[in-house]
Amino acid sequence: MSKPIAIIAGVGPGTGAAVARKFALSYPVALLSRNPATYDPIVADINKSGGKAIGISTDVSDSKSVKAMVEKVKEEYGNDVKCAAAVFNASGAFVRKPFLELTGEIMDSSYAGSVKGSFNFAQATLPLLLASTSTSPHPPSLIFTGATASVKGSANFAAFATMKFALRAMAQSLAREFGPKGVHVAHAVIDGVIDIPRTKEWDLGEGGKIDPNAIADAYWHLHTQPKTAFTWEIDIRPGVEKW
Amino acid sequence: MSKPIAIIAGVGPGTGAAVARKFALSYPVALLSRNPATYDPIVADINKSGGKAIGISTDVSDSKSVKAMVEKVKEEYGNDVKCAAAVFNASGAFVRKPFLELTGEIMDSSYAGSVKGSFNFAQATLPLLLASTSTSPHPPSLIFTGATASVKGSANFAAFATMKFALRAMAQSLAREFGPKGVHVAHAVIDGVIDIPRTKEWDLGEGGKIDPNAIADAYWHLHTQPKTAFTWEIDIRPGVEKW
Amino acid sequence: MSKPIAIIAGVGPGTGAAVARKFALSYPVALLSRNPATYDPIVADINKSGGKAIGISTDVSDSKSVKAMVEKVKEEYGNDVKCAAAVFNASGAFVRKPFLELTGEIMDSSYAGSVKGSFNFAQATLPLLLASTSTSPHPPSLIFTGATASVKGSANFAAFATMKFALRAMAQSLAREFGPKGVHVAHAVIDGVIDIPRTKEWDLGEGGKIDPNAIADAYWHLHTQPKTAFTWEIDIRPGVEKW
Amino acid sequence: MSKPIAIIAGVGPGTGAAVARKFALSYPVALLSRNPATYDPIVADINKSGGKAIGISTDVSDSKSVKAMVEKVKEEYGNDVKCAAAVFNASGAFVRKPFLELTGEIMDSSYAGSVKGSFNFAQATLPLLLASTSTSPHPPSLIFTGATASVKGSANFAAFATMKFALRAMAQSLAREFGPKGVHVAHAVIDGVIDIPRTKEWDLGEGGKIDPNAIADAYWHLHTQPKTAFTWEIDIRPGVEKW
Repeated sequence: MSKPIAIIAGVGPGTGAAVARKFALSYPVALLSRNPATYDPIVADINKSGGKAIGISTDVSDSKSVKAMVEKVKEEYGNDVKCAAAVFNASGAFVRKPFLELTGEIMDSSYAGSVKGSFNFAQATLPLLLASTSTSPHPPSLIFTGATASVKGSANFAAFATMKFALRAMAQSLAREFGPKGVHVAHAVIDGVIDIPRTKEWDLGEGGKIDPNAIADAYWHLHTQPKTAFTWEIDIRPGVEKW
Repeated sequence: MSKPIAIIAGVGPGTGAAVARKFALSYPVALLSRNPATYDPIVADINKSGGKAIGISTDVSDSKSVKAMVEKVKEEYGNDVKCAAAVFNASGAFVRKPFLELTGEIMDSSYAGSVKGSFNFAQATLPLLLASTSTSPHPPSLIFTGATASVKGSANFAAFATMKFALRAMAQSLAREFGPKGVHVAHAVIDGVIDIPRTKEWDLGEGGKIDPNAIADAYWHLHTQPKTAFTWEIDIRPGVEKW
Repeated sequence: MSKPIAIIAGVGPGTGAAVARKFALSYPVALLSRNPATYDPIVADINKSGGKAIGISTDVSDSKSVKAMVEKVKEEYGNDVKCAAAVFNASGAFVRKPFLELTGEIMDSSYAGSVKGSFNFAQATLPLLLASTSTSPHPPSLIFTGATASVKGSANFAAFATMKFALRAMAQSLAREFGPKGVHVAHAVIDGVIDIPRTKEWDLGEGGKIDPNAIADAYWHLHTQPKTAFTWEIDIRPGVEKW
Repeated sequence: MSKPIAIIAGVGPGTGAAVARKFALSYPVALLSRNPATYDPIVADINKSGGKAIGISTDVSDSKSVKAMVEKVKEEYGNDVKCAAAVFNASGAFVRKPFLELTGEIMDSSYAGSVKGSFNFAQATLPLLLASTSTSPHPPSLIFTGATASVKGSANFAAFATMKFALRAMAQSLAREFGPKGVHVAHAVIDGVIDIPRTKEWDLGEGGKIDPNAIADAYWHLHTQPKTAFTWEIDIRPGVEKW
């Protein structure tokens, strides 16, 4: 029997890359992003250091693209491929705008990237996760990355918070539906700025940015929880953060 | 100067009709629904009993339809029409289904009816509400109707809860953005079955269904709150309800 | 049959006085405070303007004092006195201090004033509220006043938030236990500074302080909700408040 | 420099014992309970298997007893003893009773065991935790064990939920105050029945009880989080649990 794999959507520098590297220590991984340039170096790294990774250019907002991704996963890892973990880390566009400056197009594309994307991803991966409940070393896990806006609708965040609340609702509903079936669904509220190249110049003081590797460690811990002790939600923030 | 009006979206039997009748005691009203058959009798009733009402066939999920609605409101109530209250009561389709039986089409239409609909409605009414902050007898109010699924993502409710959480986020973000500008944005978690013709046969015991007139009274109370004492969220449920 | 009464604990300038005056428009009232000087002028006012009020010096943290209060209520309003509404507005001491500067005595007295006080008050008034479920013009109501600290444990608020969270838990548990028995239990999160003599000098900008009469109006609205439409919790804050 | 220690309050069969064994793999531990019979076998086990443990009979609700505990810890581990982790797992009495059958004594003893106990424990351990921020291998951690009643005030749980909400407030306030000072304060909502001798006979179905070792693993993970990625709250429940 082949080893179950991990599928990570939204792999760029930051959380996605860190999660990919962490899970690749234990599983073959498939890394998804629209732009191969974002996952190529990570795929190369993992394969060089003894792991097994493939990258698949995928637009999670497009169900056809997600289905094609599953086909490529099967080509690579076998038709009976099973999934030990699936992580949805595609953030969708970050939008901060006075409400009356938002457009229907912004709302639609926020919905597509975040809500529809997570929906497509969950629909594609849950059958592979359910298939591994009796064989995966840990309960198969479906983890969603959230943000401050998942639990707080701040002024000027109508588009972003709307979609993040929505994603959280989906994660909670799935946790209640699939927990009894042996799949661990979890949601992480990442409440702070992540330490990535794009935020390098931001001065948030000593310890003010979240180390993406710590997020990956937390996700791995969630994944290793036995079925008698599932965490549905964790929050993660710098100790110095105001909240 | 002409009287400010109230616009109520989602007028059918139940909450919408009760809210329409209540606000029509103080304001001329515009009642929106896709199907005129749902608002026609209420419009007739209000006009007969000394109020002033018009019905406008509107698909809130379609921004053009919502813009056309505003034009009709202006034709009827003047180009400088102001809005004292706007209530979004369009529920979107109620969907209860195992997650893997949901389709992208169900998600898209749930989004369109609930999230996009409330977005279009808020974008169309906020300028009219902002225009009346200094003249409306009470702070102009934008009220959204939510449900149990606004705060709880139950199993098999991935589509419905996703959109209800989203609506709640939008309401919260708008409350924070427009409260300081004098508009009162509120969200009501209607946690129970409403007593309407469709639920007539449901036996939920004595007092087990919510009287829509009580919801209307609560919305009216929210509307009358002065700007120093805005409530953002209320929950409403039968006293006998388990929660 | 004698008219049901309203009992209001924590009557000083501000919310308590405003609630007392509001409920006195419909019911004879009993106003509680440790210090008669705080309720005397309000009692006099109400009696002068056609209402009926008595003041009873009561230490809500002391169960004997609360029992003696009930005896005095019965002396005044009859042994079969029933209660239409009971409002717990005693705030307990406001404490803001670094945690390591708190003492066990501060915790104990915070507990006594807030948690034990509300417990004693609820135990004394619930039998009188239950007795009026079939005769009170509105469902008998037990309303608790909370604060920002009821839902947020800020730094340096360990004592205050601890007791306010506790009070909220009690209110929620009572709502679930006594709602099905016809008593409406509600909790109000007063999220802002109340406009009272003590805060007169505080400059919070135009509309930055909560009008206590608006709180009283909200409590009265809660009281008038029928048993099919109980609100458990409302939040109240100035429209300009940051939250 | 001596090794930092871990102090665990509320060590009996179940969570406390599992946490003690887990943290004893890395730190000398001090195990607290009123009754030495509950910690003696665990202390013996740890010492036998290469760890280092002492048991100290402590009544956490009594500040003198807690101070005496600190003295004993210093006698054993040195006057400059530092603390890497402190876990408050003393549950206080579980009370489930109709509200009108509760007594002031039940409330007081619930307060003493849960709220005052956690207060005394936090006041005693925080100075030792603060002292180790620069030397502990992981950020010093103060972890509180909560329950379903920490976030839900069910009917007949007025005493228990009141104290659990209170404990949660304290944990949240401490997280906000001490996070910026380098101490990681966390709260765990244990939402289910723990698999211990007392619950052995309860038939909750396959996987229906929480393995206390999984709770210990989760606490250890919390402890290892770096200061850029603190989790304040996790929930833990069986995958099959209804929630």
